[in-house]
Amino acid sequence: MPETKVKKTEDFNEWYNEIVELADLCDKRYPIKGMNIWRPYGWTLMSHIDQLIKHEMNNTNHQEVYFPLLIPESSFKKEEEHIEGFGSEVYWITHAGLNKLDERWLLRPTSETAMYPTFSLWIRSHADLPLKTFQIVNTFRYETKQTRAFIRVREIHFFEAHTCHVDFKDAEKQINEDKEIAKRLFDKLCLPFIFGKRPDWDKFAGADYTISIDVLMPSLRTLQLGSIHQYRDNFSKPYNIKYETEDGKHAYCHQTTYGMSERIMGALIGIHGDNKGLVIPPEIAPTQIIIIPIIFKGKEKQIIETCGLLYEKLKNEGFRVKIDKRDITPGNKFYDWELKGVPIRIEIGPKDTEKKEFTIVRRDTSEKRSVSQNSSILIIKQIFNSIKEELSKNAEKILKENLHRVNTIDDAKNLKGIIELPWCGVQECALEIENILDGNTLGEPIDNIECKYTCPVCNQLGKTWMRYAKTY
Amino acid sequence: MPETKVKKTEDFNEWYNEIVELADLCDKRYPIKGMNIWRPYGWTLMSHIDQLIKHEMNNTNHQEVYFPLLIPESSFKKEEEHIEGFGSEVYWITHAGLNKLDERWLLRPTSETAMYPTFSLWIRSHADLPLKTFQIVNTFRYETKQTRAFIRVREIHFFEAHTCHVDFKDAEKQINEDKEIAKRLFDKLCLPFIFGKRPDWDKFAGADYTISIDVLMPSLRTLQLGSIHQYRDNFSKPYNIKYETEDGKHAYCHQTTYGMSERIMGALIGIHGDNKGLVIPPEIAPTQIIIIPIIFKGKEKQIIETCGLLYEKLKNEGFRVKIDKRDITPGNKFYDWELKGVPIRIEIGPKDTEKKEFTIVRRDTSEKRSVSQNSSILIIKQIFNSIKEELSKNAEKILKENLHRVNTIDDAKNLKGIIELPWCGVQECALEIENILDGNTLGEPIDNIECKYTCPVCNQLGKTWMRYAKTY
Repeated sequence: MPETKVKKTEDFNEWYNEIVELADLCDKRYPIKGMNIWRPYGWTLMSHIDQLIKHEMNNTNHQEVYFPLLIPESSFKKEEEHIEGFGSEVYWITHAGLNKLDERWLLRPTSETAMYPTFSLWIRSHADLPLKTFQIVNTFRYETKQTRAFIRVREIHFFEAHTCHVDFKDAEKQINEDKEIAKRLFDKLCLPFIFGKRPDWDKFAGADYTISIDVLMPSLRTLQLGSIHQYRDNFSKPYNIKYETEDGKHAYCHQTTYGMSERIMGALIGIHGDNKGLVIPPEIAPTQIIIIPIIFKGKEKQIIETCGLLYEKLKNEGFRVKIDKRDITPGNKFYDWELKGVPIRIEIGPKDTEKKEFTIVRRDTSEKRSVSQNSSILIIKQIFNSIKEELSKNAEKILKENLHRVNTIDDAKNLKGIIELPWCGVQECALEIENILDGNTLGEPIDNIECKYTCPVCNQLGKTWMRYAKTY
Repeated sequence: MPETKVKKTEDFNEWYNEIVELADLCDKRYPIKGMNIWRPYGWTLMSHIDQLIKHEMNNTNHQEVYFPLLIPESSFKKEEEHIEGFGSEVYWITHAGLNKLDERWLLRPTSETAMYPTFSLWIRSHADLPLKTFQIVNTFRYETKQTRAFIRVREIHFFEAHTCHVDFKDAEKQINEDKEIAKRLFDKLCLPFIFGKRPDWDKFAGADYTISIDVLMPSLRTLQLGSIHQYRDNFSKPYNIKYETEDGKHAYCHQTTYGMSERIMGALIGIHGDNKGLVIPPEIAPTQIIIIPIIFKGKEKQIIETCGLLYEKLKNEGFRVKIDKRDITPGNKFYDWELKGVPIRIEIGPKDTEKKEFTIVRRDTSEKRSVSQNSSILIIKQIFNSIKEELSKNAEKILKENLHRVNTIDDAKNLKGIIELPWCGVQECALEIENILDGNTLGEPIDNIECKYTCPVCNQLGKTWMRYAKTY
């Protein structure tokens, strides 16, 4: 059976670049570099991820909004740190039709500066708080580094939640909720991740602190999928987001944001895929079950009929199921659907029809079994659960095996993956370690693990652990 | 009970401008004119409309894609007629970060020029046809006329289907399918409409012909909600969208598009609303049923409990239902939910609780009735059907009463609404009538009704009827 030209196990990055197009997720031939076309299969997959996010948002009383794409330069410039962080990465609209605009407008790189002038109008009293909103939109960044589908692009499919609170404590509660949301979401996607508190010099422009959500890709580089930011009143002051307290005073709101991007797609592709192509967790698979008739002469009608009956049965149970009736060999069909990562393949041939059975093949393990037609629903559900567990287990194993806690640079030097070293809290020491390891700081573990060892650069007692990794 | 400040029946346009904000659909205070903020209630309503459109697209085997927002000037200019139609209405990106771009990029005003270079790569053989795709995205037009929420905006929530076919005949079949889709969709929205074949000088840039979908607003101006375009091979030639035929030759595809916008929201608001606010068809209502406890001292617990039980029952049946437990008077609650157009209000007070009944109030007719708790589900479904029928009937009545077929300009002069006059087929004659009636040509009826009368301008025998109306 043919496999992808490049094997995941031999050259992950090349395999990745190839599979995103082979599996019909995207088309990279759009004439603007880093702006890719979402093909139907890729778009459906992303939509299913979006649905999971929306489900979490609904259950936590966030409300969906849509703020305009274009931001006037004057709104953007109100928050000094923010413009410093983004100024060199935004696209500018200068003309409309044949006219030059009086003021330049930029495409949202993220929506703080689009939303917050309006939040200051929406919020009047403590009764308006907390304000919990989100939107799923595209954002735009002028990437100068090499682009990579879903991982580093210039038009980014993006989720952003923005909340306003009476005080720091209530904003912290939101951040805890965000962390729980991340745990539930990434559990469904079978993607183990780590939270890390970013060092001050690497936090989001304008944030008080930033917690990043990182996964480990098979190349043993980390990929940041999202982040959660505590803003305190850093934005509410320049944007004048105030409320009247219960005792009639005025106070600035405390704010948080939670962002995630299409990089989730990148992680799914990279972490679960194999040499045959994608492997998609059942919950979000555009097609969960593919039925393939194994036609033998003289039995065509009977086989197609059995496939049709099973299709109806599965569809009525709510499964996303298809029959592949194309006039090509079963082998070619297997190849196509394995490439696309469909979790379960069902083969129905003459023997199966006679025995009132069919053959189920799992995409992740290639395990094959005969199943009686009567018990199909139950067994499919069991297999879906088992696929989910298996994908999670495999990914967890890789993350665990490549997360190293060591005390000295010598111990760290030959390790790959994520390395935790004692850290004194001084920027220069962390930057020196970045240099030596040729990696980036990921951040501190957020669970405040005690560190009894000394910083390997300055030999002061470590205040905490700091993680380093090569990153995308 | 308070009503909106301006009455729909007294000043429709002012009422409309007021209600879109009062009912929390949008916020017009965004600092760029014509780019409004979608508030949660408005966004949910639009999402429900989008879901109906996606449902139609799925059932007709259209596949959802997403093409980039930005279009290089060179792609845009390939189709001469197209650029003439849109050149003065687009936004130009000239800079990224601190750099001037080598080539200017524009924000999509519509996606032909973004998609078709790629269609020419996707389509190789007749087996790839028909190609049926759609996307729901925002488009951008530099409107210089006065803007109006949902009706004339500069960032437009937009649905666009693009299809490619082996020949003109197959493309015509698509247009018939599109017309059926429109009928099913607008039936669900209770919006009667007319199809009109646009005159040549007013068709879409690049189209062979254009069919518009127009509704009549209460101001007796028409509002175009969408259009269906036959492109023949007008785009496939400049964009080189060719395929190999069954007998090994090469031919250009024939193409169609079908577009609709957030104007559907405008029509829903305008046509169904009344002096109390919005009236939303049950199928798309963000909240379909609002339960209002009518609290009497000493009975609080019992009433709240009854409300809770009913809420659970209705929720389990799949209704979108809420309880309003706010600490304000029932009258204020009625006002709020009437403003928002919630189809059914259920009041539960002490008497209702004792009698195992509750009171149902219809939003559209204000009709009130007591209903036994046991028969609630069935009766609610009946009322939903009845609301749908009533909304459709009322809107049809207004359309019918204001669609006039007359033979002379004198007969037309004092009429309001849509006027059909005989037309000889010559542009100058139609333009003169536009001038005299101070209206616009809407187009010919698409059902080829015979016209035995003479053109009121040139006195030649009319080839067809032409419709005129004041338009938004």
